[in-house]
Amino acid sequence: MTVATVPSVSYSITVRLEVPAGGKAVSQLTHAVESAGGVVTALDVTTAGHETLRIDVTCAARDTDHAQAIVDKLEAVEGVVIHKVSDRTFLMHLGGKIEMKSKVPLRNRDELSMAYTPGVARVSMAIARNPEDARRLTIKRNSVAVVTDGSAVLGLGNIGPAAALPVMEGKAALFKRFADIDAWPICLDTQDVDEIVRTVQVMAPGFGGINLEDISAPRCFEVERRLRELLDIPVFHDDQHGTAICVLAALTNALRVVGKELSEVRIALAGAGAAGTAVLRLLLAAGAHNVVVCDYLGAVHGGRDDLDDSLRWIADHTNAESYSGDLRGAVKGADVFIGVSAPGILNGDDIATMADGAVVFALANPEPEVSPDDAREHAAVVATGRSDYPNQINNVLAFPGVFRGLLDAQASVVTQEMLLAAARALAAVVTDEELGPNYIIPSVFHADVASTVAAAVRESAGGRARTGMTEA
Amino acid sequence: MTVATVPSVSYSITVRLEVPAGGKAVSQLTHAVESAGGVVTALDVTTAGHETLRIDVTCAARDTDHAQAIVDKLEAVEGVVIHKVSDRTFLMHLGGKIEMKSKVPLRNRDELSMAYTPGVARVSMAIARNPEDARRLTIKRNSVAVVTDGSAVLGLGNIGPAAALPVMEGKAALFKRFADIDAWPICLDTQDVDEIVRTVQVMAPGFGGINLEDISAPRCFEVERRLRELLDIPVFHDDQHGTAICVLAALTNALRVVGKELSEVRIALAGAGAAGTAVLRLLLAAGAHNVVVCDYLGAVHGGRDDLDDSLRWIADHTNAESYSGDLRGAVKGADVFIGVSAPGILNGDDIATMADGAVVFALANPEPEVSPDDAREHAAVVATGRSDYPNQINNVLAFPGVFRGLLDAQASVVTQEMLLAAARALAAVVTDEELGPNYIIPSVFHADVASTVAAAVRESAGGRARTGMTEA
Repeated sequence: MTVATVPSVSYSITVRLEVPAGGKAVSQLTHAVESAGGVVTALDVTTAGHETLRIDVTCAARDTDHAQAIVDKLEAVEGVVIHKVSDRTFLMHLGGKIEMKSKVPLRNRDELSMAYTPGVARVSMAIARNPEDARRLTIKRNSVAVVTDGSAVLGLGNIGPAAALPVMEGKAALFKRFADIDAWPICLDTQDVDEIVRTVQVMAPGFGGINLEDISAPRCFEVERRLRELLDIPVFHDDQHGTAICVLAALTNALRVVGKELSEVRIALAGAGAAGTAVLRLLLAAGAHNVVVCDYLGAVHGGRDDLDDSLRWIADHTNAESYSGDLRGAVKGADVFIGVSAPGILNGDDIATMADGAVVFALANPEPEVSPDDAREHAAVVATGRSDYPNQINNVLAFPGVFRGLLDAQASVVTQEMLLAAARALAAVVTDEELGPNYIIPSVFHADVASTVAAAVRESAGGRARTGMTEA
Repeated sequence: MTVATVPSVSYSITVRLEVPAGGKAVSQLTHAVESAGGVVTALDVTTAGHETLRIDVTCAARDTDHAQAIVDKLEAVEGVVIHKVSDRTFLMHLGGKIEMKSKVPLRNRDELSMAYTPGVARVSMAIARNPEDARRLTIKRNSVAVVTDGSAVLGLGNIGPAAALPVMEGKAALFKRFADIDAWPICLDTQDVDEIVRTVQVMAPGFGGINLEDISAPRCFEVERRLRELLDIPVFHDDQHGTAICVLAALTNALRVVGKELSEVRIALAGAGAAGTAVLRLLLAAGAHNVVVCDYLGAVHGGRDDLDDSLRWIADHTNAESYSGDLRGAVKGADVFIGVSAPGILNGDDIATMADGAVVFALANPEPEVSPDDAREHAAVVATGRSDYPNQINNVLAFPGVFRGLLDAQASVVTQEMLLAAARALAAVVTDEELGPNYIIPSVFHADVASTVAAAVRESAGGRARTGMTEA
């Protein structure tokens, strides 16, 4: 389970309490929260009476236990009566985070007659005659299914389709926020590869793209490969390719900072799952030659007797010297460490053994492979998946723009060239003037990210620009 | 294909043209449209120059050929240059009719941390621990999948899933407009019953209800029956039960008008498909005893050798006298005729043979089983599926309220009792003062319809009222 180490708004609570109007209680509230290690972010007096005040104290906590400790401290203040404790994150989720909206008015009979029967019949017949018109006259033009089987949700593991739904809703909200795409969550009640593939194939006609999400490896590889063969719309497993695009973009800029070439650096990559495999493939496609991949058994090499198809591919395309030691040994002398694996598997001393101008991407979240503070003592550039350190590598930088570009180009496939183009475009958002050890990748809120990535993908797909909506 | 017999806004076109500023052309435009049998609904001068005017002439036509005839007449006016002809219905469909909206703000890092990682992880874990929380903390609370296989779309037949999409989008827009429900279209690329059932079962976790739509009989019966057994959310085939609710409500009020009892009237029902079978079952459940069902082979009776399971059920529950003649014979002396079948199968003379105070529901659309004008010469009450006659029987009167009630009650099933309750509630929207031969069913825009139906369904389901959204 995700655990933050500093008070975070994602564990924010609002405590509704009552205090005597005349006493010192009010002035002691902030102190009480702080003495418990919390941070007061708002203090609203909601009702002021002669004898008592009702106050909403909103504060950030580290986790659920910490939130309770803060409430206990508040309750211990003389005269305070606690009424209700609300969790802001849960409040935000009540009733779900997304909704469906009609884009057409349905105020009267005439509008009903055009949007529904009888008028809609002519539109349906136009599509029946010319199926390509579906991309012009329906939501297929702009819609993406966010599909999961709930088998590998965030770092939470196999929690199933219903529990995955809040994450998929969040993903859909991000699609809209960053790329004006209409995504809808589809949570599958099966983890059988054949059934996932067939279900997505059967429900595909209404969508312009499929975003696979949080499906565990190695099943995700087969699901994606087979769907790409079957469907005429792009299929993109974000945990793989979104991560790969962001890592390649960040590494491109990190190497600009330290003055090294991708084709020449030695890279130690920890993690051979969905993300690790996709990162590796994109790095190789971008020109990297010298990579050693490690999983929990150590370096992947041809001499191991536990190699499945995916690991066999890795062994065949990396580790030319057949290094067979552990991650620590692989990191020694390396120019780049990329971790998409597990918390705390390296320490500062390991980073100290790397080459000069070392680049460290410790992307396990929320606890990185190595403490970013320790890594920064020895490495030239450090990036993590966390928002409380510089250089956050976050898939939100990639997937909205990628799908915007795919939809605008009316692409039927996703190619390696499009992913490379997306990574190059994302890297180029950081100008030479801005580039530095603490700014190798733009913020997720940088206004140009999605449109820049979208343009690169669209161009790579050879597609038309997004057309206007004013002509029939 | 749907054909309107009078100029309709659903065939509305806008003709952009240029005319000499000084001549008589402007005054001749309206006349030109009218001489072609069209109706001018708007005439906008968009650019007024010294020599020429640009004008958008919007007018209603009967069909595509008629629209062309109108354009030809306009072009024949001296000095007129036609620039562009737009079809308003197609304009309305460009880019699709619905969209996904985020209900939560994503303006900054804090909001992102609550709606997505890391905050969302706690919400997912809460649902993993207590699956019922999905109805509280996700869109499942308010979402319905509008599922079709494209096999029986409107009156257009088997046009496939992509061509069905505009209809399903329209349905989703109606769900929102009339009951604030978040529906999303799922168009299936299969017409195999097993595959439809399995696909809907697999994708069900994220939805609070399933609305089956435009699936041809008899497959629709098995699809619905099996899904109802498999799923813990309500499954409702609108073509069946939406129609049945509206017919029963309208018949209840028609019998109030003519002073007859449902248990005593003789009913001739034309159509033994999805709608006809569902109408029959609900009429019987409501107390009707004396029904003869006819399909294209004539009356359904136990002596026919072509009976499948569905027709066998009909034979076992109707036509106690084993009438074996045709529809004309069945209508003779009947108190009620209900047609959910084919255009023009009866004429005014047939209606004249019915009992005094006859009730005629000719619901084939757009061309009814008997001309409403002819029927009204002999029947006391006439209803159709058309919006250009009084007493339009339209499923929009039923399905939004039904699903609103089901979702609010967090119902896991749809029962016959709920359908009866919905029909009673819909009938009761028409007060004694309002009731009359030309007002047996409220308008689809009547403000009380959906909430009244919803309350009845919710109560029948024994469910809670829709809860507020203010507490965690």
